[in-house]
Amino acid sequence: MPRYRLTVAYDGTDFHGWQRQEPKDKPALRTVQGVLEDAVADLLGRRVDVTGASRTDSGVHAVGQVAAFTADVRVPVERLPAAISSRLPPDVRVLHAETAPDGFDPISDARSKCYRYTIEHTSHPRNPFPLFDRNFVFATPYRLDPERMQAAAGQFLGTYDCVSFAQINHGRATTVRTIFDCCVRVPAPRRVEIEISSNGFLYNMVRIVAGTLLEVGRGRIEPGAIRDIAASCDRSRAGPTLPPHGLCLRWIWYGARSEEHRDNRPAGQALEFEGLPE
Amino acid sequence: MPRYRLTVAYDGTDFHGWQRQEPKDKPALRTVQGVLEDAVADLLGRRVDVTGASRTDSGVHAVGQVAAFTADVRVPVERLPAAISSRLPPDVRVLHAETAPDGFDPISDARSKCYRYTIEHTSHPRNPFPLFDRNFVFATPYRLDPERMQAAAGQFLGTYDCVSFAQINHGRATTVRTIFDCCVRVPAPRRVEIEISSNGFLYNMVRIVAGTLLEVGRGRIEPGAIRDIAASCDRSRAGPTLPPHGLCLRWIWYGARSEEHRDNRPAGQALEFEGLPE
Repeated sequence: MPRYRLTVAYDGTDFHGWQRQEPKDKPALRTVQGVLEDAVADLLGRRVDVTGASRTDSGVHAVGQVAAFTADVRVPVERLPAAISSRLPPDVRVLHAETAPDGFDPISDARSKCYRYTIEHTSHPRNPFPLFDRNFVFATPYRLDPERMQAAAGQFLGTYDCVSFAQINHGRATTVRTIFDCCVRVPAPRRVEIEISSNGFLYNMVRIVAGTLLEVGRGRIEPGAIRDIAASCDRSRAGPTLPPHGLCLRWIWYGARSEEHRDNRPAGQALEFEGLPE
Repeated sequence: MPRYRLTVAYDGTDFHGWQRQEPKDKPALRTVQGVLEDAVADLLGRRVDVTGASRTDSGVHAVGQVAAFTADVRVPVERLPAAISSRLPPDVRVLHAETAPDGFDPISDARSKCYRYTIEHTSHPRNPFPLFDRNFVFATPYRLDPERMQAAAGQFLGTYDCVSFAQINHGRATTVRTIFDCCVRVPAPRRVEIEISSNGFLYNMVRIVAGTLLEVGRGRIEPGAIRDIAASCDRSRAGPTLPPHGLCLRWIWYGARSEEHRDNRPAGQALEFEGLPE
């Protein structure tokens, strides 16, 4: 049976994260995987497992999540995004579909993932802006210096033990990761976007990196201290874990290792969103 | 007792419009006026009427609604926005507060109001974009020609009977209005913003003007036909009433008639939002 690969976007606000959750003796929680499997089941007439590349947490968004399933599908692959999306609630969309090699595993085949964390300074902590995108932007009462943050962001690049930037309970065999890219942008006054790409992230890692850069931006950590914090393997020296709603999974790359990782994003992954406010 | 004037922003998605609604034998509906009066009552220790300039419909948003109340307030006026906002749910904010003349009436004193309607073309009608601002943008399956729309927009200017662009049941004594400005912008690919300002709008008027411009943009009404449609005083010749969620009240102006109406927006009205995506 053919294997399919989907690119999926969602507003994570009203989901209990990506992963299907069916607690015993309780109703199933609303998850992205759950509604996606329901939609695919409605289309195919039978249930199949839809595996996602990243188990995003409750409240985390995505424009380029990748998911895969194996099934005989009568709909032509180019019409699959519309066929599935029309069966989805308004907060999830399938952006792209293509056939994939038989053994395609969206988790272990991923070479690089990119996340974005968005922070906005609001002068009144009890009167927070932004209003209209409050579910997508973390509001901070602190003034941030983006130049300090950019200087610190560059210090995250490289291959090293990232355990300082992981929740203690990470449960991974190895905590060495490669950070390919980490940069800070100012898309609007008072707003800062942090983008980071890696061959894999530890649990809560992007939210802790963002919290560390926030501390740099408000002057409580020096940009030059990032490498020391990393080398210390001491979670308590990094910044706080920022809340999930500022986080968005941008893209996941599966190309050959020999290719440059940034300029080879598969068609349909996140690129459709470039012109839109988020 | 002093009179206060507030500038209020809200995400109208989860409100039954501006106006307080307390049906007999039923729980009160969630309205912007209702939550604002609750917040003011919590601050002052007693209930006062908060009068709004525009009774926006269910689902309609605002960045520059104006409201007024009369009360003795101990909080300094510059701290009033934070003091009220901290008592409001996350989808409403008081942006600005100032003292107003005793007889200030936000409804009858208004000289000009400006609304924006946002439309986005989505290629798959059953797979609608945008996803993240789906509550603020009307998605249409039709390709729109913004140059045709802009040519038609200019035809709306002037003082005339606007009854062709009002819901039949408008209930107003006179239907003559002055349109000061009507323009079409393209802030992003496939997206069109219509802004219109007037000394007063009939019921559903902006949504009908937007629907008429949509018909122009997709080629079903000619730009040159707008004045004929207006002169006919025939609602059936105009375009459809577009849904409320694409509509946002931008600003209300109360300055002297002799001043130019556009460049004198009061401080705090909508201007704070200029840099933000909406």
